[in-house]
Amino acid sequence: MPDDLAPRIAVIGGGQLARMMAEPAAALGIPLRLLAEAAGVSAAQVIVDHEVGDHTVLADLERITVGCAAVTFDHEHVPTEHLRALEASGIAVRPGPDALVHAQDKGVMRAALARLGVPCPRNALVTDLAAVEAFGFPCVVKTTRGGYDGRGVWFLRSSADLDRAAEAFATAEANGVEILAEELVDFRRELSALVARSPSGQVAAWPVVASEQRDGVCREVIAPAPDLAEPLAIQAQQIAMRLAGELGVTGVLAVELFETNDGRVLVNELAMRPHNTGHWTQDGAITSQFENHLRAVLDLPLGAPDARAPWTVMVNILGGSDGTARLYDGYPHAMARDPRLRVHLYGKAMRPGRKVGHVNAYGDDLDDCLMRARHAAAWFAGDLGEESE
Amino acid sequence: MPDDLAPRIAVIGGGQLARMMAEPAAALGIPLRLLAEAAGVSAAQVIVDHEVGDHTVLADLERITVGCAAVTFDHEHVPTEHLRALEASGIAVRPGPDALVHAQDKGVMRAALARLGVPCPRNALVTDLAAVEAFGFPCVVKTTRGGYDGRGVWFLRSSADLDRAAEAFATAEANGVEILAEELVDFRRELSALVARSPSGQVAAWPVVASEQRDGVCREVIAPAPDLAEPLAIQAQQIAMRLAGELGVTGVLAVELFETNDGRVLVNELAMRPHNTGHWTQDGAITSQFENHLRAVLDLPLGAPDARAPWTVMVNILGGSDGTARLYDGYPHAMARDPRLRVHLYGKAMRPGRKVGHVNAYGDDLDDCLMRARHAAAWFAGDLGEESE
Repeated sequence: MPDDLAPRIAVIGGGQLARMMAEPAAALGIPLRLLAEAAGVSAAQVIVDHEVGDHTVLADLERITVGCAAVTFDHEHVPTEHLRALEASGIAVRPGPDALVHAQDKGVMRAALARLGVPCPRNALVTDLAAVEAFGFPCVVKTTRGGYDGRGVWFLRSSADLDRAAEAFATAEANGVEILAEELVDFRRELSALVARSPSGQVAAWPVVASEQRDGVCREVIAPAPDLAEPLAIQAQQIAMRLAGELGVTGVLAVELFETNDGRVLVNELAMRPHNTGHWTQDGAITSQFENHLRAVLDLPLGAPDARAPWTVMVNILGGSDGTARLYDGYPHAMARDPRLRVHLYGKAMRPGRKVGHVNAYGDDLDDCLMRARHAAAWFAGDLGEESE
Repeated sequence: MPDDLAPRIAVIGGGQLARMMAEPAAALGIPLRLLAEAAGVSAAQVIVDHEVGDHTVLADLERITVGCAAVTFDHEHVPTEHLRALEASGIAVRPGPDALVHAQDKGVMRAALARLGVPCPRNALVTDLAAVEAFGFPCVVKTTRGGYDGRGVWFLRSSADLDRAAEAFATAEANGVEILAEELVDFRRELSALVARSPSGQVAAWPVVASEQRDGVCREVIAPAPDLAEPLAIQAQQIAMRLAGELGVTGVLAVELFETNDGRVLVNELAMRPHNTGHWTQDGAITSQFENHLRAVLDLPLGAPDARAPWTVMVNILGGSDGTARLYDGYPHAMARDPRLRVHLYGKAMRPGRKVGHVNAYGDDLDDCLMRARHAAAWFAGDLGEESE
């Protein structure tokens, strides 16, 4: 490899987020080195320099980061003590352990947001069923660590649902984590404010988007969020930019928010990596979240986050349950029907409910973009319900 | 690899064109398999499944294409008889040997264009100096095969330059090729009409661009060609679309043309692969030439070739001669100065005159795009002359 190329970045985790980092890495001439959880996983299909290893084993992390200028992540599951050990050995860990813990532990995150005065749903750490009753209903209880895509979350309408809380406590105890109770917010919709921050302190903020979650899984994103009041959009971006700075985030930070029916935004979750609500940026923004993540990790100046089209709609492709899903076999119809459609597949086999790709449709007319993206995603998923033709 | 992924495409040649196919291949979930001329070459850095081998050795071609649905190319140097052997073995060769020979052999190309009545510079195969004299001056003599980036081309102003023709004949004889004489066209500028054609016969035509060549090397492309008269633009596109069909091209066809000072277009060269004059499509068109090349190779419907911005300017990054060139080291300035700049590097070490990358700048104002792209390319090349700040 020529000497005048970029320093190498280690990426921990071989999922689709690492895979999608490979595209801008190739364009920018930035070599990646991947620690993959198994042979042939999504990112290992497209990153030449990869090894199979375990992100919970320090020796594996040390081996993959040798000779790399920085290490970043496909997921938030690397233990904090390992991140500290890597930092101590001189590698730039981005985001660093002190920032990342806020995306790993919801209890730590809520405490930090309270300290910073950032608006959140009312919440409290609870240790037993009596504490849940005292918190009040309806509420949602969550494990502080380890939950994602709807796992580790229980909704309690009333005390009649306390058996679910018991299940939550059992799960928490089995995994050595805590339980957080949060008010069930009466929200109009979910928003996401995505920013990238470099170690030097530059922040790029993409337009605030609306996201639709079903069963805890992101299904659809509209960029920008339609009819979002300008003050709320600015507040959401300011929260994300401020959190990125206060928590010392390096790379992409996604702040998922509730827009309440009474016109407020409340922070729901934080993610410190490229995020599903930012996949629209691949085709809809001047600089994608994946490129700006890499730039931030190397402390390079960030690319412009502006939208390239009035509207971009992202819809995830999820494996259907009836076995009629198709990926490559769906191309002839999807591509012929919509020559402007942008398809992103992850190299994953279809399984019911599994995210295997997404489509982006951009243009001047929101309804047209929605129709095109929804139709294509439903077509691939083999799930042509009432929302499509 | 899951069964519902795309069929595998073999790519012969590990240069930057193959490298840039890897980005849309990853997005579309299309696995590539690369025959690289050496370890660590441009495309071998980003295509996991690669082997080192020789594109002139049939056994190497056979080994790399085993299990692939189709084979395509980074360059036009694979011998015709090998392409026929691969076809006979059942693999789809795209473009096929009968088409590709028109990009390999300028004599065959000129004969085909004459047969089809496509406007060309006056030309003739010449076998000795007397034939060159009879053809007339000024003229240009070219080897029919093997020339590129200005090599294999000699300009003759008058009979005083006949020693150059002698050099041309010596080169041709040493390489077993012929010599073509062509009139020196009094052209206003060079244009390029780029199309992709699928085996089913669909053709996507990108806007006609203006390209600036220096010393036979493409330096700059403006999309679309400024102030190009609509009838000429249509004629150029029709020539490219017709040639793609008549010659049976599959994949990208670049038709380089002269726009004469008296308002005609004349075909100069053909290339049957993604082409330097199409690099602007990566950031400036809905579908890039690299993606549509892959789609065409697999006979999938083609993506829309429309421009996404009023203007896109591509400028190549060439290694300067004074040792002040920089690639990664140039990022802090280039990215901070222009957050909208799109950079594409090839993973190649700098050498004087070598193409090591390109930049794209798009926007509403042509002068602004020209200034941004020229400045960035000159900055990387270490060649900040009068055309930049």
